[in-house]
Amino acid sequence: MLHKVIQKIDQHAHIDVVDAHCDIPCGIYDPHHALIGALTVVRMVDLINAKVKEHGAGSTAEFINSMARYIAIKEEHAELTKHEVRVIWGDFIKAPHVEAYPQLPGLVHKIMQLGSKARQTVSREAALDLLEAVNEFAEIFWQIKEIETKRVKAPYSVTEEMVVPVL
Amino acid sequence: MLHKVIQKIDQHAHIDVVDAHCDIPCGIYDPHHALIGALTVVRMVDLINAKVKEHGAGSTAEFINSMARYIAIKEEHAELTKHEVRVIWGDFIKAPHVEAYPQLPGLVHKIMQLGSKARQTVSREAALDLLEAVNEFAEIFWQIKEIETKRVKAPYSVTEEMVVPVL
Amino acid sequence: MLHKVIQKIDQHAHIDVVDAHCDIPCGIYDPHHALIGALTVVRMVDLINAKVKEHGAGSTAEFINSMARYIAIKEEHAELTKHEVRVIWGDFIKAPHVEAYPQLPGLVHKIMQLGSKARQTVSREAALDLLEAVNEFAEIFWQIKEIETKRVKAPYSVTEEMVVPVL
Amino acid sequence: MLHKVIQKIDQHAHIDVVDAHCDIPCGIYDPHHALIGALTVVRMVDLINAKVKEHGAGSTAEFINSMARYIAIKEEHAELTKHEVRVIWGDFIKAPHVEAYPQLPGLVHKIMQLGSKARQTVSREAALDLLEAVNEFAEIFWQIKEIETKRVKAPYSVTEEMVVPVL
Amino acid sequence: MLHKVIQKIDQHAHIDVVDAHCDIPCGIYDPHHALIGALTVVRMVDLINAKVKEHGAGSTAEFINSMARYIAIKEEHAELTKHEVRVIWGDFIKAPHVEAYPQLPGLVHKIMQLGSKARQTVSREAALDLLEAVNEFAEIFWQIKEIETKRVKAPYSVTEEMVVPVL
Amino acid sequence: MLHKVIQKIDQHAHIDVVDAHCDIPCGIYDPHHALIGALTVVRMVDLINAKVKEHGAGSTAEFINSMARYIAIKEEHAELTKHEVRVIWGDFIKAPHVEAYPQLPGLVHKIMQLGSKARQTVSREAALDLLEAVNEFAEIFWQIKEIETKRVKAPYSVTEEMVVPVL
Repeated sequence: MLHKVIQKIDQHAHIDVVDAHCDIPCGIYDPHHALIGALTVVRMVDLINAKVKEHGAGSTAEFINSMARYIAIKEEHAELTKHEVRVIWGDFIKAPHVEAYPQLPGLVHKIMQLGSKARQTVSREAALDLLEAVNEFAEIFWQIKEIETKRVKAPYSVTEEMVVPVL
Repeated sequence: MLHKVIQKIDQHAHIDVVDAHCDIPCGIYDPHHALIGALTVVRMVDLINAKVKEHGAGSTAEFINSMARYIAIKEEHAELTKHEVRVIWGDFIKAPHVEAYPQLPGLVHKIMQLGSKARQTVSREAALDLLEAVNEFAEIFWQIKEIETKRVKAPYSVTEEMVVPVL
Repeated sequence: MLHKVIQKIDQHAHIDVVDAHCDIPCGIYDPHHALIGALTVVRMVDLINAKVKEHGAGSTAEFINSMARYIAIKEEHAELTKHEVRVIWGDFIKAPHVEAYPQLPGLVHKIMQLGSKARQTVSREAALDLLEAVNEFAEIFWQIKEIETKRVKAPYSVTEEMVVPVL
Repeated sequence: MLHKVIQKIDQHAHIDVVDAHCDIPCGIYDPHHALIGALTVVRMVDLINAKVKEHGAGSTAEFINSMARYIAIKEEHAELTKHEVRVIWGDFIKAPHVEAYPQLPGLVHKIMQLGSKARQTVSREAALDLLEAVNEFAEIFWQIKEIETKRVKAPYSVTEEMVVPVL
Repeated sequence: MLHKVIQKIDQHAHIDVVDAHCDIPCGIYDPHHALIGALTVVRMVDLINAKVKEHGAGSTAEFINSMARYIAIKEEHAELTKHEVRVIWGDFIKAPHVEAYPQLPGLVHKIMQLGSKARQTVSREAALDLLEAVNEFAEIFWQIKEIETKRVKAPYSVTEEMVVPVL
Repeated sequence: MLHKVIQKIDQHAHIDVVDAHCDIPCGIYDPHHALIGALTVVRMVDLINAKVKEHGAGSTAEFINSMARYIAIKEEHAELTKHEVRVIWGDFIKAPHVEAYPQLPGLVHKIMQLGSKARQTVSREAALDLLEAVNEFAEIFWQIKEIETKRVKAPYSVTEEMVVPVL
């Protein structure tokens, strides 16, 4: 039913064939949504900082309305990123994958922490750190599925690099 | 089932540049999530029908548990597809796009109806109709953004064709 | 702002009896909830602007707390209005209705855009535009069901006109 | 800001003027949504029982799909009814109203219990009991607002009596 | 602020054994979550007021981001507290309990109002009033289950007293 | 199934004092809710299996209604357990804790997988495995906070052992 994970190169040679029994099991995993979440965090930080720069020190209703909305979307998408990564990690990643990619538990833990930091701050650096960590997670994910990836300019209003599978 | 999307270059040329003032406005739109929703509906229909075929006429707890879960995921993802298409249509698509792609309102309406049909039935044909309509919507979306698309085999446990941008 | 809904009897007469096959299909549709959403947006805009006028340029915790809450409720109810209209349009409105009321797709599209504008701004005019569009939608809805409507003063803390069926 | 609750008739003579400080405070309360919830419960029970009667003892995928969906909507709407009544009771009803309508706490408690019973069973009687209790609650609500009510045939696929304000 | 809960043994003795028919019925009730909600409200009020004191009258992006987040969590947890108490009251508390503890309906009503007040203000006193009311509710809950309670210092970043069962 | 958590004092002693910078940061963490989730899964499995045993091979509406509800609550609470553990792990657990309790990443991964298994099956063993893993997680959590724990009979309709802090 699911593509068998057959590891070729020596790095992966010891991974046994693992059936990816997921939560349903549905077998439809894709880090794309986690990446959209991280890119949206970057975008919101940019909008927040642009608004503050343009607005100065006042507090008109329009200003507060915009800020509240940017922050809420930032919260929601940082949380979405954490949730999506947790699901892939919990339901797709199995013990043999962890053996082959021993950095995985630490990377996932780091994404959770960076997701929280992105919520707590309006720092562009924190947002980019989150995006980079999710990009690395996406690369490992597609490697496990034996599908090549590349990094492209995101085709959105925020154009930071994102990992996509070569299909 | 749906009219083929035939885009003439001159028709396309009439579209003025439109700022994508979205809900935030965030400018991060992508029909990918709507497609994942439609593909998941296909997958759930397959799992439902396989389970019934394998199980026969009994009603063990395991059977009911699986069926309830497949149906809930099907519900959720058909709804997700409708929601995602509604957001892109409401926040990204502007009047000039509707002029250039006069089939859009009908296509969106059809996706809403097919999404509901996919919830009401366990028909693979209904699920594929939904997927095809969303693929056509995705093609128009990327055309508006002037990004080429191609149809690829979905890299999941369900491998129906899906539209992706050429990045 | 929106074209007046003028229904000619002969136009109406062409509609075949259409079974309201909805999502369940449940047949319990009512634009009342969408109207409550739009009225709540008006109310929140009023509360926001009153608070800013009364408060001046400071930023006490009480002020920020109230503003954050008004904005969140405004967001939620504008979204609710969009969602409710989308459901009625997707599940109740059929092709023959669109033929009889050709303004419907444009009206629904406009409600989506006005709902977003109501979120992006704290403009009373934008909120009233949304309410008026939903009132027009409600009138068409009840006409399709062949139930008369009237416009009444809303019996809430905001007393703008709302469309109700004559039962 | 909010209509002052001025009680005229002797039953209500002892109620002091009460400012209806609600959760926002928004002042937009309406038991309509709670009634829609209760009517939907009735409708789902009808659909469930019709399906079982028509279907007999088999368990086809279509049958299970429909049943799962009816039950989920029944759950959701019984819960909605409880939630809506709780909000009006917690944010609109004040101590003087409870003095004037001493049956209110018991009625609200009963609605919570009937809402749960409606979830636990597929009994039409239980669903109608819930509807009747919410109708009584609606009557008291509008009395407090000094707006007359009447009972009308619901204008939906389920046509049980519902309380509406005379506007 | 709330009347002290004085339980006489003989009063308690009159309660017949009541099966806890809950919504499922599941029989897994615990006011712990409602208490966590109330404690979180206290904590958010403290963070809000500390932030404002430290920050002064400016409105930097970091300040607005933190305030928006504290307020959102305060909203969510005050609502959670109301919801949890409503569920226990609606599904666990039966008529004989109300007879034995006649203060219950008033206490529950008060919790709803205090939960709303905690949302509307940033007052520490309002937050503590909510917590105290929920503590009293928790004491009655465990008394009904005939399990002793004690008040302990909460083992969190906020250390106000909370009621726990002696297990 | 899971390795016994054996904490040596000297190992513990190496942990530097770590400020619990959480998502807010709020500092109100408690594995209690995750445990309630796991206990509820056990309870639902018991109700499902009792219902099937009592019911036999029919498929009355009442039977399907109950089963659908038990399964939905099982889904929801297994997910809740996973979510709660993810939050504590992501926001409370820091690198020094992972050094002191090197079993933590594996234990958390296991909880995610057991949570999914509990959703996929109606096995009491799977439900108990989940509960035991969360109990072990709770023990480590309280150890990090330097608060003693004990295992008590849960004071609910399901009385399996649960870890509580000694306060």
